Amino acid sequence: MLTEPSIATSLLKRFLDVRQATMQFCAPLTPEDLMVQSCPEASPVKWHLAHTSWFFETFVLGEFVAAYQPYHPDFRWLFNSYYKSLGEMPEKKLRASFSRPPLDQILAYRRHVDTAITRLLEHAPQDEALRRIVLGLEHEQQHLELIATDIKHALFTNPLHPAYVAAPANFGGDSAQIAPPLDWFSFSPGYPVRPGVVEIGVTPDPTAIDSFAFDNETPRHPVYLAPFRLASRLTTCAEYLAFIDENGYSRPELWLSEGWDTMRAEGWQAPLYWQRDANTKSGWSVYTLHGFRPLDEISETPVCHLSFFEADAFARWAGHRLPSEFEWEFVAAQQPIEGNLLEQESLHPSSATTTAKPHAPQQLFGDVWEWTQSPYTGYPRYKPLPGALGEYNGKFMSSQIVLRGGSCVTPKAHIRATYRNFFSPGTRWQFSGLRLARDGAS
Amino acid sequence: MLTEPSIATSLLKRFLDVRQATMQFCAPLTPEDLMVQSCPEASPVKWHLAHTSWFFETFVLGEFVAAYQPYHPDFRWLFNSYYKSLGEMPEKKLRASFSRPPLDQILAYRRHVDTAITRLLEHAPQDEALRRIVLGLEHEQQHLELIATDIKHALFTNPLHPAYVAAPANFGGDSAQIAPPLDWFSFSPGYPVRPGVVEIGVTPDPTAIDSFAFDNETPRHPVYLAPFRLASRLTTCAEYLAFIDENGYSRPELWLSEGWDTMRAEGWQAPLYWQRDANTKSGWSVYTLHGFRPLDEISETPVCHLSFFEADAFARWAGHRLPSEFEWEFVAAQQPIEGNLLEQESLHPSSATTTAKPHAPQQLFGDVWEWTQSPYTGYPRYKPLPGALGEYNGKFMSSQIVLRGGSCVTPKAHIRATYRNFFSPGTRWQFSGLRLARDGAS
Amino acid sequence: MLTEPSIATSLLKRFLDVRQATMQFCAPLTPEDLMVQSCPEASPVKWHLAHTSWFFETFVLGEFVAAYQPYHPDFRWLFNSYYKSLGEMPEKKLRASFSRPPLDQILAYRRHVDTAITRLLEHAPQDEALRRIVLGLEHEQQHLELIATDIKHALFTNPLHPAYVAAPANFGGDSAQIAPPLDWFSFSPGYPVRPGVVEIGVTPDPTAIDSFAFDNETPRHPVYLAPFRLASRLTTCAEYLAFIDENGYSRPELWLSEGWDTMRAEGWQAPLYWQRDANTKSGWSVYTLHGFRPLDEISETPVCHLSFFEADAFARWAGHRLPSEFEWEFVAAQQPIEGNLLEQESLHPSSATTTAKPHAPQQLFGDVWEWTQSPYTGYPRYKPLPGALGEYNGKFMSSQIVLRGGSCVTPKAHIRATYRNFFSPGTRWQFSGLRLARDGAS
Amino acid sequence: MLTEPSIATSLLKRFLDVRQATMQFCAPLTPEDLMVQSCPEASPVKWHLAHTSWFFETFVLGEFVAAYQPYHPDFRWLFNSYYKSLGEMPEKKLRASFSRPPLDQILAYRRHVDTAITRLLEHAPQDEALRRIVLGLEHEQQHLELIATDIKHALFTNPLHPAYVAAPANFGGDSAQIAPPLDWFSFSPGYPVRPGVVEIGVTPDPTAIDSFAFDNETPRHPVYLAPFRLASRLTTCAEYLAFIDENGYSRPELWLSEGWDTMRAEGWQAPLYWQRDANTKSGWSVYTLHGFRPLDEISETPVCHLSFFEADAFARWAGHRLPSEFEWEFVAAQQPIEGNLLEQESLHPSSATTTAKPHAPQQLFGDVWEWTQSPYTGYPRYKPLPGALGEYNGKFMSSQIVLRGGSCVTPKAHIRATYRNFFSPGTRWQFSGLRLARDGAS
Repeated sequence: MLTEPSIATSLLKRFLDVRQATMQFCAPLTPEDLMVQSCPEASPVKWHLAHTSWFFETFVLGEFVAAYQPYHPDFRWLFNSYYKSLGEMPEKKLRASFSRPPLDQILAYRRHVDTAITRLLEHAPQDEALRRIVLGLEHEQQHLELIATDIKHALFTNPLHPAYVAAPANFGGDSAQIAPPLDWFSFSPGYPVRPGVVEIGVTPDPTAIDSFAFDNETPRHPVYLAPFRLASRLTTCAEYLAFIDENGYSRPELWLSEGWDTMRAEGWQAPLYWQRDANTKSGWSVYTLHGFRPLDEISETPVCHLSFFEADAFARWAGHRLPSEFEWEFVAAQQPIEGNLLEQESLHPSSATTTAKPHAPQQLFGDVWEWTQSPYTGYPRYKPLPGALGEYNGKFMSSQIVLRGGSCVTPKAHIRATYRNFFSPGTRWQFSGLRLARDGAS
Repeated sequence: MLTEPSIATSLLKRFLDVRQATMQFCAPLTPEDLMVQSCPEASPVKWHLAHTSWFFETFVLGEFVAAYQPYHPDFRWLFNSYYKSLGEMPEKKLRASFSRPPLDQILAYRRHVDTAITRLLEHAPQDEALRRIVLGLEHEQQHLELIATDIKHALFTNPLHPAYVAAPANFGGDSAQIAPPLDWFSFSPGYPVRPGVVEIGVTPDPTAIDSFAFDNETPRHPVYLAPFRLASRLTTCAEYLAFIDENGYSRPELWLSEGWDTMRAEGWQAPLYWQRDANTKSGWSVYTLHGFRPLDEISETPVCHLSFFEADAFARWAGHRLPSEFEWEFVAAQQPIEGNLLEQESLHPSSATTTAKPHAPQQLFGDVWEWTQSPYTGYPRYKPLPGALGEYNGKFMSSQIVLRGGSCVTPKAHIRATYRNFFSPGTRWQFSGLRLARDGAS
Repeated sequence: MLTEPSIATSLLKRFLDVRQATMQFCAPLTPEDLMVQSCPEASPVKWHLAHTSWFFETFVLGEFVAAYQPYHPDFRWLFNSYYKSLGEMPEKKLRASFSRPPLDQILAYRRHVDTAITRLLEHAPQDEALRRIVLGLEHEQQHLELIATDIKHALFTNPLHPAYVAAPANFGGDSAQIAPPLDWFSFSPGYPVRPGVVEIGVTPDPTAIDSFAFDNETPRHPVYLAPFRLASRLTTCAEYLAFIDENGYSRPELWLSEGWDTMRAEGWQAPLYWQRDANTKSGWSVYTLHGFRPLDEISETPVCHLSFFEADAFARWAGHRLPSEFEWEFVAAQQPIEGNLLEQESLHPSSATTTAKPHAPQQLFGDVWEWTQSPYTGYPRYKPLPGALGEYNGKFMSSQIVLRGGSCVTPKAHIRATYRNFFSPGTRWQFSGLRLARDGAS
Repeated sequence: MLTEPSIATSLLKRFLDVRQATMQFCAPLTPEDLMVQSCPEASPVKWHLAHTSWFFETFVLGEFVAAYQPYHPDFRWLFNSYYKSLGEMPEKKLRASFSRPPLDQILAYRRHVDTAITRLLEHAPQDEALRRIVLGLEHEQQHLELIATDIKHALFTNPLHPAYVAAPANFGGDSAQIAPPLDWFSFSPGYPVRPGVVEIGVTPDPTAIDSFAFDNETPRHPVYLAPFRLASRLTTCAEYLAFIDENGYSRPELWLSEGWDTMRAEGWQAPLYWQRDANTKSGWSVYTLHGFRPLDEISETPVCHLSFFEADAFARWAGHRLPSEFEWEFVAAQQPIEGNLLEQESLHPSSATTTAKPHAPQQLFGDVWEWTQSPYTGYPRYKPLPGALGEYNGKFMSSQIVLRGGSCVTPKAHIRATYRNFFSPGTRWQFSGLRLARDGAS
């Protein structure tokens, strides 16, 4: 059965928009910037530009376009990231050596793929092809976010610490901006005042091509939840500074054992991108995509670039805990998807507002990925996608922690309440922060 | 309120038995054997003998005996394992340098503590002292198991590979012994034939001093479980050999990404203690506490000394999965605690029997710790013990996996259905194996 | 006293030539190529372009030009390599993050320095300024050689293994080209047929500004030498292949203990850049600056990219030894400086010729740096240059081995008989090979 | 030709003395002490006891006693240290796992070998057997020194820092003992007042069985030496403390580059075994074989447990340099072999005396091994011993530095002017210190 033209048409517009957004983000960067790979988690931007095209070529064009001519036969293995079913690939750390193919060729590769996908969409492809294109767009958006994350680290690593772009005029907000006091919202899942079973995740509707979820969000399934409370907003830099000032990094009783050892081995004394700076009132400056800024300017904004270990230690110090991913989703599923996301172009978390509607937690979407207390595992009866695409999410289900809600560099169309991000608990290069939770009245 | 003498009296007998069991296990070992520390997970046996005494001295005698005279003031910090609240301690890797205090002094230390605890128990101590003694005994039993585990690795590391003791006459069982075919038992938690909510863990009864659970088993709480099936017995060496022979260690699609990388980096090609041996029919020999034995002798016994990654890969290869810790507990809670445990003195897993009662899975307790698919986290509303004892379990709740059921070197009195053991997913020096699970009819 | 204009004038021409040679070598490279840093020994070419300018700015312009305006104040520390007396500098491994300053600015920096040096030379500077410019030119030539060495490794590391430039038409020479049989030349230093004392090194003439030697070549001093023999040519790939084929990499008796351990840890089975290739007659292909080539094409050329450990093991296998640096210098000092050097543009070692004059060893200069058996130490009464320049050579006098004679990427004007290059014995990314020596008749 | 009985007889006495000395040194140690291996350089004492017996068994009994029955066939490979020609051996780091064979068996092994060597010597063996026994005794004495060095590190590593034996009554000497002021002795090798050629090393007399030198001391050969001066005594702790107090560990210009990096990576701030101690006047305590002692007690004794890098940096700070090994030997060859050696039983360096004869440097033998500036290489025409014994010294001739003169734990009969010890420049667990040198008037 062929798909209705209207879906293909709207998907084409979306495809062109998403592909264009990637290129637009790179506009302020030089060809040399695109070469930098400054930490094991990151890749050069140039590689991202190629790999996202490779994804479309491999999983869409190569499978659904008869007699498709690949742009270059070597690109098939050269820009494979980690799909072992497809054969050998270069080690990740070698990506910084990819001066060839030259940038011009990478850009031509993108155009080649854009043209081929456009032609495919203009010719009423099968449903499965459409689904794969949707997957490719979600993949591209993930990599757009990674580009923002990676280039921040790359520019910070440069001893000159250049800015990606100049700060907007209102960066850091009105200097009188103060985050509202922390408040708590109570939730009693299940039948009123009784703890109970809630439904988590999503079971995809095979007929709704536009509706998308990664395989790790499936299937929708029951989970038992006791009553709990969730903080009304994210934890701020000012609150985290109090943790630092009260010797949070020197008190082992606040830390998981693995966290303490990691923190000591790495020499952490503050979030990533914070540096002591005697020239500021607070004694700290913070590197942002707009360059180094005094912490004082952004002390009311959500604290960012924390590891899970730091988020967990902070929560213990505060007398509370991190939410489970199920608690978070249960609440977020009832809220509209809006917030400080990539399209806002702030490129940094923003303060909570005092004018936000008072009946629900704010900042659930955007600003910072929120560390939960939940290890990343497959949901009951979880089935990875068939074939090489099964490697997308499933093989990472060990020693990682789930984060929820997206950040200020997440495209808005990419995030949803059921979305599960995941990183090792010692990861800090992401825009990652926290929201407090506590047990409800029993 | 004072405790009834009868509890103290029975506890005294138990105390003397447990302490004696530790010493008895060491009888075949030389003072030099007690010095060896052959991997980062292990400690010298001599250190275990001191540390278990330190535990009683620190958490019982020092708190509940007025004017208690410690055996030696330096032992307070010297034999602290990881309780940072109590002050600094030597790095774990230094324990192999503890030639002083000499063994004689360690044994005198044990007797000193035994005498003091005996006297305390003879004088009707407070309930809290009794509870601490019970905790100390559970702690001693954990370390007795660790002694067995660590000395196995120590003797194996010695290039001569000496045996701990000679094999019993019937080791490896009747050569005709064949494990029964794998069968499945179905479970539908909750209301008949309907998935539902079960109760997991335990909420301690503060008045029942004898009843014990570690804090990580608390509190009892509801968990939602869908129908599932559990294998009738543990996976055998013969079954695991088929996985090896079908290139299980060379097929990335079977492995978690972290598992694949670990396996390749470590060069694993089989479980720990297996070595290729052209002189055996199977091509393998296996080191046991009775020295190296041809795999052929024990091919029907449960496979042992697997990492989580190997257990998980095997399950995927077999078309099934590992059980969750809740599934396991739900089943085990209905079974008597019996099996091939330390008191059997086999010191190695035994074959399942064809004569076992057919209405439930066998080998749930003893033989091998069973890797589950569950990351180790705190139960909802989990509260660590107050003070330094809060470091016993809670601070390890990251990047570890739960194992259930005890092994052939676990004391019988130490294991129960709610017991949660935990290790990093790459750990192999434990007596760890697996049981398969699968989803129930939906 | 002012210097005669003619010296400054000729120096200006030389300055412009040397600076131009660096730029010319970079012509085939893209801005992205200039960013790659593919091993700890190497730096990005872009960094070399800046650092060599920094050297002139720091040690000439900043000291000898009144009111000199540095191109950019940050460059003073940013492009410092290892001169700790001048203050802090970025870690070497960060150089790959120097996307900013952009290449345009680096090129402008070079022009700024060129202009300022030109002006200085046009105004009759002090002798010391002239001497520093000469030093700066030698430094620039060293870095030109490093650029060739580093970009070879960078392009090789790229999984596509692109060539730097296409091979010249006669690459690998006439296919009938066969290196002449190995012959020996005898030397009896001192009075005829009597072992004795020779003079090694150079004591600079302070009035001869043009005459240059690094401080590590000074002072000229007596050394006792016994009679010895030196091979008539360098060791070839074909000869080295015999060592490989006779299990040279598996025979511990041929290797220094540190060499054996290094070789096994690194997994070496052949020189760097050799790869097994079933499609060639010899079974090997070799990466060159002209891309991968069958070993068969170049089997008669000198073997290259050996560590000292491999050169030493080969010599032992061959029943001979490496020469001392004094033996080498004693012989080379009597020969003209000519050979396969950078200006030949072969960019690869060439075969010895059968038409070479028969009365002396050939290939002493150019082709490959020759590992000697001499650890790198200061000559008796060696004094490093004063100030920061004293860090140029002196602080590396431990755990390194001297190499002599220059390679096919060494500028001709840069090499001389007294020149001492030095690298750690495990280094292979240099164009390094060997010449055999043996004891003379006693 | 058979040897005269008198040589065999005197050798037998020497053999029994040397073997007995080893056992006597171990008398204060427990079987557990003998198990400790506390750093990669060290071995357990128990292993030394076995290995020295293995040496006699392998290189004497196995070759020169017909139908010799080895004590145990496994010992042949088990106690091989590094002789690859003899086959595989256990990794060095595994020696700490050698709880079996038990100590009793090791002692029986020693007696077995003692008996067999005694019998051999009683039956007029060949000259070559006698030479091998002499070599075995030198080997045993080396290991006796290593036992002292290794057990010092082992006991220090124990957090209780026990002493090997109590200090002698006069330890640290008369509190009024002050080292004499540093003076210089001038040497002009060769014909009077003219620099010249000296003879270094030794060419063995094949007919003098008792005369011994390691192969690395051979052959005697000419070396050119310029005039130089040598310090009248070793550098003291007080002098080294001044280097520390004047920020010697923070001034990069004083250090070799490799030394600076090593020192920073290791966190060195003082010699090994020095610890800050606010309870002493000097602010330091020093661990000795008699336990920790205030630095004040031993400030006039030679500084000890320095790396080459520290000795070299100190010399540069002092405005002088380290002597070459040839300068040292030239001077020492003219002096009697006497000093603070193992037989003095001080087990720690002693102060220089003001009553020493004024015409020559003192402390040349004993107290501390003196770092020279000379890398360890083979002498011209050096030939290693044939067969496996060729691995004794020759294969270590890279990246090591020569030390001369023996220490307070070197047996007197083991040291001589031509003796060349060698260690990596970062080694500190040896009793290693320094003596200053400078250039003579030219």
